[in-house]
Amino acid sequence: MKLYEWDFAPNCRRVRMFLIEKGIEIPKEECITPDIALKDPFLSKYKHAMVPMLELDNGVQLGEALAIWIYLEALHPNPPLLGTTPLEKAVISGWERRAYDEGIIGHAEIFRNSHPQFVDRGLPGHLGPVPQIPALIERGKQRVARFHKKFNEQLASNKFVAGDKFSVADITAVCVVDFGHALEMQIPDDCPHTKRWFDEMLQRESVKKSVPTHMPDGSPIPIAA
Amino acid sequence: MKLYEWDFAPNCRRVRMFLIEKGIEIPKEECITPDIALKDPFLSKYKHAMVPMLELDNGVQLGEALAIWIYLEALHPNPPLLGTTPLEKAVISGWERRAYDEGIIGHAEIFRNSHPQFVDRGLPGHLGPVPQIPALIERGKQRVARFHKKFNEQLASNKFVAGDKFSVADITAVCVVDFGHALEMQIPDDCPHTKRWFDEMLQRESVKKSVPTHMPDGSPIPIAA
Repeated sequence: MKLYEWDFAPNCRRVRMFLIEKGIEIPKEECITPDIALKDPFLSKYKHAMVPMLELDNGVQLGEALAIWIYLEALHPNPPLLGTTPLEKAVISGWERRAYDEGIIGHAEIFRNSHPQFVDRGLPGHLGPVPQIPALIERGKQRVARFHKKFNEQLASNKFVAGDKFSVADITAVCVVDFGHALEMQIPDDCPHTKRWFDEMLQRESVKKSVPTHMPDGSPIPIAA
Repeated sequence: MKLYEWDFAPNCRRVRMFLIEKGIEIPKEECITPDIALKDPFLSKYKHAMVPMLELDNGVQLGEALAIWIYLEALHPNPPLLGTTPLEKAVISGWERRAYDEGIIGHAEIFRNSHPQFVDRGLPGHLGPVPQIPALIERGKQRVARFHKKFNEQLASNKFVAGDKFSVADITAVCVVDFGHALEMQIPDDCPHTKRWFDEMLQRESVKKSVPTHMPDGSPIPIAA
């Protein structure tokens, strides 16, 4: 197997953290040029033009972080990160989705619609021009604010995002908070429970070893970890 | 159990179709006012303020269509709609996600940023004002065009979206195409494979019986089914 990725991308970090938590080693290939274009041979062989992508030894290509998680969880069930009982699985899925839709998408809206290297690249996976929409910066901030309000409330009475066990919901939420750091946005002062949880997350090997090393322009990332 | 929903919402139809395919009967409650606000007691008891939501008999609330699917698939494994082998599960998840991100979100961007009843309601689940962003109409059309190009290619060599079995990837893709019909957008003429697949989908009980009955303003829905 081989994992195609872009170090900075939160969706790729979702997979890197998962691999470290599972103790799975898979060769990785960074497939982004310095000016942040997907490069060949990746681009010509993977029509969805997005990272991460897991290529199996028989050539099958699996895209989308969730799909890659599902595949690897089935092959390596322990420790379970997608839940074991029906209820656990559903609760984890719901919170992982909220972290994604409100946190990852919120920060991505801010980032892609403001960063000078993303002019005409407002969405991933589109090979034609997708103009930036400056109004999405403000909407992205609204999404991020909702993420923080909701997750701080949830973490007030739960050790981890989806309850008493570490799961993919924590993985995506860590990627949300550190994506914020890269945009120089901090956990709000009125979210002490998220701060407590994030401090605990920073102790995990999977968080420390998955930190992106550079911004799209090559400069260091202002990440807290 | 009880399913809280809004008849018109594609995310609710994703759950309705799943229930019919499984042969599961669950009481449903429409919880939208004629001017499309979530109504009490739903709104006051479910803080995420989104539909669908499945309430279990012990009061546990499961939000997000995918989470509801995961829960019900574990309780009612047959027929499997999320896949059985690791590879099937991953392939279905990837295609379901593409249908959602490119099709559902694309149409939702067009709909929510143009419909007069959605002024200041640009996103679901936000109780404060989220202004419409007219530029998202064009971006939504770009997403929808990508959905059609990609899915027509996939359906050229696959009976169903994710291969040779009906799955949740078909469910979400049906909701995409009929969401388009409600916006008076048709399957493009250069997508014959999607038309072949959709004609087959229209024969399924789950598609026929889950069709929304009215537009947000109460008018009939121009759905092909």
